Amino acid sequence: MRTQVGIVGAGPAGLLLSHLLHLQGIESVVLENRSRKDIEETIRAGVLEQGTVDLLTGAGVGGRMAREGFRHHGIELRFGGRGHRIDMHALTGGRSIMVYAQHEVIRDLVKARLDAGGEILFEVEGVSVRDFDTDAPSIRFRKDGVTHDLACDFIAGCDGFHGVSRPAIPASVRTEFLRTYPYGWLGILTEAPPSAKELVYAYHERGFALLSMRSPEIQRLYIQCDPEDDIASWPDERIWGELHRRLAADGWRLTEGPVIQKGIIAMRSFVVEPMQYGRLFLAGDAAHIVPPTGAKGLNLAAADVSVLVRALVEHYRTRRAELLERYSATCLRRVWRAEHFSWWMTSMLHRSIVDDPFQQRLQRAQLDYVVSSSAAAKSLAENYVGLPFDW
Amino acid sequence: MRTQVGIVGAGPAGLLLSHLLHLQGIESVVLENRSRKDIEETIRAGVLEQGTVDLLTGAGVGGRMAREGFRHHGIELRFGGRGHRIDMHALTGGRSIMVYAQHEVIRDLVKARLDAGGEILFEVEGVSVRDFDTDAPSIRFRKDGVTHDLACDFIAGCDGFHGVSRPAIPASVRTEFLRTYPYGWLGILTEAPPSAKELVYAYHERGFALLSMRSPEIQRLYIQCDPEDDIASWPDERIWGELHRRLAADGWRLTEGPVIQKGIIAMRSFVVEPMQYGRLFLAGDAAHIVPPTGAKGLNLAAADVSVLVRALVEHYRTRRAELLERYSATCLRRVWRAEHFSWWMTSMLHRSIVDDPFQQRLQRAQLDYVVSSSAAAKSLAENYVGLPFDW
Repeated sequence: MRTQVGIVGAGPAGLLLSHLLHLQGIESVVLENRSRKDIEETIRAGVLEQGTVDLLTGAGVGGRMAREGFRHHGIELRFGGRGHRIDMHALTGGRSIMVYAQHEVIRDLVKARLDAGGEILFEVEGVSVRDFDTDAPSIRFRKDGVTHDLACDFIAGCDGFHGVSRPAIPASVRTEFLRTYPYGWLGILTEAPPSAKELVYAYHERGFALLSMRSPEIQRLYIQCDPEDDIASWPDERIWGELHRRLAADGWRLTEGPVIQKGIIAMRSFVVEPMQYGRLFLAGDAAHIVPPTGAKGLNLAAADVSVLVRALVEHYRTRRAELLERYSATCLRRVWRAEHFSWWMTSMLHRSIVDDPFQQRLQRAQLDYVVSSSAAAKSLAENYVGLPFDW
Repeated sequence: MRTQVGIVGAGPAGLLLSHLLHLQGIESVVLENRSRKDIEETIRAGVLEQGTVDLLTGAGVGGRMAREGFRHHGIELRFGGRGHRIDMHALTGGRSIMVYAQHEVIRDLVKARLDAGGEILFEVEGVSVRDFDTDAPSIRFRKDGVTHDLACDFIAGCDGFHGVSRPAIPASVRTEFLRTYPYGWLGILTEAPPSAKELVYAYHERGFALLSMRSPEIQRLYIQCDPEDDIASWPDERIWGELHRRLAADGWRLTEGPVIQKGIIAMRSFVVEPMQYGRLFLAGDAAHIVPPTGAKGLNLAAADVSVLVRALVEHYRTRRAELLERYSATCLRRVWRAEHFSWWMTSMLHRSIVDDPFQQRLQRAQLDYVVSSSAAAKSLAENYVGLPFDW
């Protein structure tokens, strides 16, 4: 087997990369150890930056998103029992976000690839990335019990935080940065119409809460919890009780409905430097993780892919390697911006697990400032809708 | 003895309060346990916000400041061996700062008070504030061995962090917020012309450094150090070595000269809530301390005094107490904004004492962002030149 770019992982990064390369006449094969059904149904992020929306739309995979997604021009910060709207649209000269679930993006991309005859091999096993420090890298894997070697010019490691690509880079040449937060997010999907038109980020003495939406019938709600909590200790009534208290505001009501899914996620920040070694290029969660507070994970993956595609196109058209050589540095500038923003949003909105009255006052001073200074609000807004991909 | 407002402490808060009250026809007496020489020669802060400059000028005590102070329209952030100017003047619609030492402000205010026949009693001892939970408060003190009681309508506690006023408020009604930083500032005065036209805030892997100026012949320089360091372990050569390394930038040279003063200061954040109890009103360092990074200490004192004067004038003119009752809440909103800004500047610019590579990358991402986003730069600038006094 042989292709130009071997892609490990059929998440948003790998699928978008394969699709964008195809549009530029560059061949790729995507290898995924899970099933198509599994990747198309796993609930993950759901906020797309303007740049991500533009990228998907420009690549011809934005049709269903335009019909079914929700375009939002603002978000609400809620604290002290009051809501304060951040008008992102006005603050950023007309940029906005799209609320559209990651698994829907994945469905659109899988369909686009398969419709175009693209190769996505699901349920492969034993993937290993090989010889990427030579001019002849390859990916070894088993499919239906048979071992294959996929020879390629480049390998894209899009296999997420727990994937095989990053650890394949010699430890001596990579530096890993990790921060684990003492917070978890307990998330539920509930069959109830959204209680607000835009996302609500609530700071409350009992902890952070987030109101989001999946469809006109389905709400997505989160509360800060202990990351070690067992979901079994959170019966629905307890979750609703916390949601009502933390999201409370004058003249506003949270709509309830049956809880159709619930789970707890941990929060961490992670970055590997560099994001490239020889002919292996990491993109998305394989290279970096952000806490979900800034809604940046999927968008960073899209930005990495955008940078990588430009570099590969330059390589195949001109045989110049400048952009490929700059791939890591170009991505990392944006990655660290997003890491900082995500850390900042997390620090501002979560209740410290140790009682720290000074820090609580600083959080409140920060929130008061963000909603009363147009410079501070604009700073939040431009990060939230996403800085330009070439930032 | 009797006066309208008894003022404890002849620092900037107490002297400015006495002077502003005098301009409104309200009598006061200032009690100070140090000598006039001592308060006029102690080197402290040196950056005045636009609002503080306006207040002093409007009160007729800005003449020498206008002649001898330095008006600055920007500051420089220096990191990665390069300087980045924050054009505060352009970013804030024409506001600026004045570099003019606190002890010069004190000299101007002492002179203005004494010229107008005002009473400042220096070198008093055993000061205690009394009966401020009644309508007849008083201040007891000894002067030249004789005990006096100063009867007054109100007491202004302007006696700094270590003064007697704050602890006189019953512990049961006050909440104190304290954060001690693991950083110290080693400051020197040196007889050398300033090496830069504006203040330089440097972030460096060896620690923070600050270049400031006192006069066309005198530079003020600081480096981050261990707050427990003995100044004896910092001979001049070691200090200059650190300054040269931390402030290094292409094509730039630090001018050296004889070190005429040096010392180490600790850094803390402190706030007491409320700032008023009965007829006792705290102002300045008696109520709050900020780390020096944001240059806010003296300016917060001026803002407190400005609020208190308006409230006392309302009281004496109309017998209404609304502004007096709101004094603490009005001040604390600004105080917490300044506390947050000072904490933010400190966190961004100081090198963590434990090696924390993730935090270092966040600091660098923050700095890169501040100097490349006009919204972020404006946010820094508007805080640095000072939000309006009625913010």
